[in-house]
Amino acid sequence: MHYYVCLHQESTNSIPKLIQKAHANNYNVVATSINANMLPMDPQETDPTYPATVLSAVDWISKLIFQVSDVDVDSPNAKLREYSKAMLMRDVIWAEHLQTNGNIMVRLRGPNNDNLAEIINSRSKGNWFINVPITNPELASFEHRKDATESEIEEAQQVDPWNWWNELRFAIKHNARTKVVVELSDSDRPSRECVRRWLGEPIEAIIIPSSLFVLNRSNYYVLQKEWQTIVGHFISMRANIIISTKINDKSIGQYSEYIKKLISDHGDTHKLNSYENMLEIPLQPLFDNLDSYTYEIFETDPVKYKLYQEAIQQVLLDRVSEAEAKRKLTVVMVLGAGRGPLVRAVFNAAEIAKRKVRVYIIEKNPSAIRTLSNMVKTLWSKKDVHIFSKDMRDFSPPELADVLVSELLGSFGDNELSPECLDGALKLLKPDGVSIPCKSTSYINPIMSAVLHNNVSQLTSTVPAFDSGYVVLLKNIYHIDEPQALFEFTHPNRAAIIDNTRHKKLSFTAQKDCVLHGIGGYFDTVLYKNIILSINPLTHTPGMFSWFPMFFPTQPLTIKAGDTISIEFWRRVDAEKVWYEWRVCEPKESELHNPGGMGYNMRL
Amino acid sequence: MHYYVCLHQESTNSIPKLIQKAHANNYNVVATSINANMLPMDPQETDPTYPATVLSAVDWISKLIFQVSDVDVDSPNAKLREYSKAMLMRDVIWAEHLQTNGNIMVRLRGPNNDNLAEIINSRSKGNWFINVPITNPELASFEHRKDATESEIEEAQQVDPWNWWNELRFAIKHNARTKVVVELSDSDRPSRECVRRWLGEPIEAIIIPSSLFVLNRSNYYVLQKEWQTIVGHFISMRANIIISTKINDKSIGQYSEYIKKLISDHGDTHKLNSYENMLEIPLQPLFDNLDSYTYEIFETDPVKYKLYQEAIQQVLLDRVSEAEAKRKLTVVMVLGAGRGPLVRAVFNAAEIAKRKVRVYIIEKNPSAIRTLSNMVKTLWSKKDVHIFSKDMRDFSPPELADVLVSELLGSFGDNELSPECLDGALKLLKPDGVSIPCKSTSYINPIMSAVLHNNVSQLTSTVPAFDSGYVVLLKNIYHIDEPQALFEFTHPNRAAIIDNTRHKKLSFTAQKDCVLHGIGGYFDTVLYKNIILSINPLTHTPGMFSWFPMFFPTQPLTIKAGDTISIEFWRRVDAEKVWYEWRVCEPKESELHNPGGMGYNMRL
Ligand SMILES: C[S@@+](CC[C@H](N)C(=O)[O-])C[C@H]1O[C@@H](n2cnc3c(N)ncnc32)[C@H](O)[C@@H]1O
Ligand SMILES: C[S@@+](CC[C@H](N)C(=O)[O-])C[C@H]1O[C@@H](n2cnc3c(N)ncnc32)[C@H](O)[C@@H]1O
Repeated sequence: MHYYVCLHQESTNSIPKLIQKAHANNYNVVATSINANMLPMDPQETDPTYPATVLSAVDWISKLIFQVSDVDVDSPNAKLREYSKAMLMRDVIWAEHLQTNGNIMVRLRGPNNDNLAEIINSRSKGNWFINVPITNPELASFEHRKDATESEIEEAQQVDPWNWWNELRFAIKHNARTKVVVELSDSDRPSRECVRRWLGEPIEAIIIPSSLFVLNRSNYYVLQKEWQTIVGHFISMRANIIISTKINDKSIGQYSEYIKKLISDHGDTHKLNSYENMLEIPLQPLFDNLDSYTYEIFETDPVKYKLYQEAIQQVLLDRVSEAEAKRKLTVVMVLGAGRGPLVRAVFNAAEIAKRKVRVYIIEKNPSAIRTLSNMVKTLWSKKDVHIFSKDMRDFSPPELADVLVSELLGSFGDNELSPECLDGALKLLKPDGVSIPCKSTSYINPIMSAVLHNNVSQLTSTVPAFDSGYVVLLKNIYHIDEPQALFEFTHPNRAAIIDNTRHKKLSFTAQKDCVLHGIGGYFDTVLYKNIILSINPLTHTPGMFSWFPMFFPTQPLTIKAGDTISIEFWRRVDAEKVWYEWRVCEPKESELHNPGGMGYNMRL
Repeated sequence: MHYYVCLHQESTNSIPKLIQKAHANNYNVVATSINANMLPMDPQETDPTYPATVLSAVDWISKLIFQVSDVDVDSPNAKLREYSKAMLMRDVIWAEHLQTNGNIMVRLRGPNNDNLAEIINSRSKGNWFINVPITNPELASFEHRKDATESEIEEAQQVDPWNWWNELRFAIKHNARTKVVVELSDSDRPSRECVRRWLGEPIEAIIIPSSLFVLNRSNYYVLQKEWQTIVGHFISMRANIIISTKINDKSIGQYSEYIKKLISDHGDTHKLNSYENMLEIPLQPLFDNLDSYTYEIFETDPVKYKLYQEAIQQVLLDRVSEAEAKRKLTVVMVLGAGRGPLVRAVFNAAEIAKRKVRVYIIEKNPSAIRTLSNMVKTLWSKKDVHIFSKDMRDFSPPELADVLVSELLGSFGDNELSPECLDGALKLLKPDGVSIPCKSTSYINPIMSAVLHNNVSQLTSTVPAFDSGYVVLLKNIYHIDEPQALFEFTHPNRAAIIDNTRHKKLSFTAQKDCVLHGIGGYFDTVLYKNIILSINPLTHTPGMFSWFPMFFPTQPLTIKAGDTISIEFWRRVDAEKVWYEWRVCEPKESELHNPGGMGYNMRL
């Protein structure tokens, strides 16, 4: 993860010198007025403020964010409006000329931005950085005014600039080249929920005004603890940092040093980084054969196999008393053994528990069988172990099992068809036998994530992108409400008639105005008694990274604070496949996703 | 450009050890039998030759090319054929398991490869490296046979394994995941034309058998001069190197050292590398406004402006005698001045020639005008220079010009509408005035390039990709015949009725069997008298890189040695646009490309 720290100064008479100064003080980028300090006030004036040749193209492109003239293209005054539009267009064309695409930063001044949206829609290249104050900028003015009444202040506090951005976002049709730059202000500190909500937006950077820095006892500029936390949240969501100062500020080197420290504290760098917000099609280990690379990734999980081993050990101890240990054999079948880690867990558990086991390995992937056979011949040549290249649903065992051990779980629990496979393996189990796992439950919650929405929209697959569920390391998201349990499956399932279809409707409540972009999906599973694996954010098993969450997209829907969001979810089954359908019912009834499993289904 | 040098050894009993040995001897990759040395001869046998776990996934993926079992899936013997297919499929599935995608090397044994094609078509992932002998491998056997007759040998020499590959290529529908590995052989050295033809193919690597190396006087293994040249050609076309040796060869370190030296000699590393074979949409400087980055690239050409300056100097000297030098003013108009390099050339030329000039700068791009105005005010504040933000076609000059200087040339000469613009500027010129340039000519030739064909096929634009011309740094191509002149334009054009449409049919001859993939396009231009700029490969101006060639795609067509290839080309004009149409008429009449300019046109 690479961050930039950008120096923002409004007026300079030399962009190259500003860049030099910024570099000397450890900034990578500068943000400044596109007209430098020679602003021609007539939009028709092509007279140069400076020639393109003062910087090389690569410097223009990589080192500058252009702040366009601070004009009001949505002014109610027609003359001012037309003048402003001409000024903005002139700046945009110059930025596009200098930067090929152009990184254009423009400030939102209030709720009406229709003309701005029109201009953004009219340009086919360039990145727009929309500068939005995190709280109502009017509040700042009250500090200097003694005459402001309580109710005036309260009213101003009601104004939420997030709504300005939200309306603009819809007006520009969620244009992926448009990002947010959130501007902090020393006049008002945003609430925790307000910060969390921004984390669901496509954030390019935050602007920290130099006035937010205070001197500590050693005479160094730092941020107060509360601001530090807020900035830390943004950094951990990959926001870049823009520090805004007066042109003659002597402490800019201290600010950047401090911020770089914050970045190294908060910008986690674990190796799964590259998966953040990336939509992946869920695996289908039943229908497809997994490759070695995928198995290898499974096997690196430091927690999953330890908990399996504990569960197996517990079952062995529960089923065979100390007294019987020497002669009573426990038959364990590992269903879907992959490259063998659960087999190893069984042998480890037996050794620690001092119980005798016979292991049957069942696996339907012939390439995995090649590796397993080798292990049986070498590693486990002294063990009581038997290998079968079989689908567990078609397997006729030489004897019945005391324990079935399997890991057929997807990010949404049942989405790799663990219920169907384990139902098919019921005939392998003794009447009093147990299954590890014995229960699994899926969870969902409503999510705001403009980044995921854009990623879904940009998929050009043959199936409609909004009818598919995705596996994704959720990063830039706002949890609108906490997850709730959806579907549950227990094993072994000895019901006379087995029905693995499900249907449920769940209701959630929004705390703040926001946009619903989709549904997060998670699961937990009880391996045995109180030994549990969970990727539910509320109870996530520490250190376990085998499963990323699911994301089920819906069409963007603006939500008001206090709104109830109801979501209906189906698990459907026919002779060849299993699939989910989902629909948002409240606050507004919306389309049914993936009807008939046309977009996304799991082949039986 | 990164090359790999790969060690190929057929039998090993440990892949990890083979990799270790290869690394120790400076090879990056190994190619070996997928079954190591424990080849199970029964395709149903899933018994392991080795488990997937002997290497990490990243090593499997990055360090191995798998040679599949050398079976004949196209054998006329039905039993052998079915057995071979089962063996090959087993190998392919194992390769895909180990490598996620799989780099599978398979040897062509003769002209019939229908079943192989079917298998390749049936797999949706993995890269296929098709091992093709550069000359008929049968020739090798004659060396050991005393009884071969002259006519037998001659017949064998007629067999051209390129044709085996060519048929396979059509049968797999030009699948872009399939590349060629050309195998050299010490029994026969290929002709120059044979080598050149392979350079138009999608080459992954060449195989050099260790027997090709000979000891030099210092007792080092080297290639003979002729082989050195051949290998050098392949390297400069970005082929990787596979060295094939016996398992106990003690000199493998010397081979790799020698090859790395050859690579550093032949693998040119100029900074335009990254553009090789990349299709770019031609610029439209008349309709669009160029950005600063593009101008900057123009300006780095070390040759173009020098030649312009010489041409201007020559004109000044020709028009103004030594005696008149002090008082006679030459009016020079720079039409389309960009960021000013031609203006600079005029001032330099005037200074060297010691002649007086007045310069009019005409440019229609308002952003370029910003930079030019600044230059006029600073750099050229003491000069007789006047700037006009105008389209040259609409410009009313205060006086007429002695010389028009322009550079409105595209890779195909007239494709940036230089004829139309200069015709529009005729009214600016004195009756005896001159234009620099005064003539430009386009050239075409037939080209084989599987790589460009694949690149065109993979374009998913809204317009049909085969109806567009592209600017491209031609690298992996075979010139089927030399370029010939196509269209010519002269300036000033004082014809009563100006007609810039053109039509011509040109005929070429193929020297070898090959595939026609498209048409190369080039131009040259006479600036003044004998001062010429050329990108015609036969006369290319040394060191000039402002223009890459054009490529006009056609549908792949197999050509026989001696065939006539006729190509018909049109330049068409209507009120709004100019466009080309092209068609192959011989050896087979094929479709008309870009009818009506629907795919690619230049807006007036
Ligand atoms: C998620 S992987 C787990 C592999 C291994 N136990 C581990 O934890 O690394 C599921 C495995 O079950 C296998 N599998 C899935 N359905 C199966 C079935 N019906 N019969 C046999 N094996 C199955 C797959 O081929 C795959 O190897
Ligand atoms: C290929 S560029 C050459 C620029 C510059 N002379 C150089 O060599 O770097 C062509 C220039 O001509 C300008 N141009 C093209 N057509 C024009 C027209 N009809 N009138 C005025 N300028 C034109 C373009 O805007 C562009 O700046």
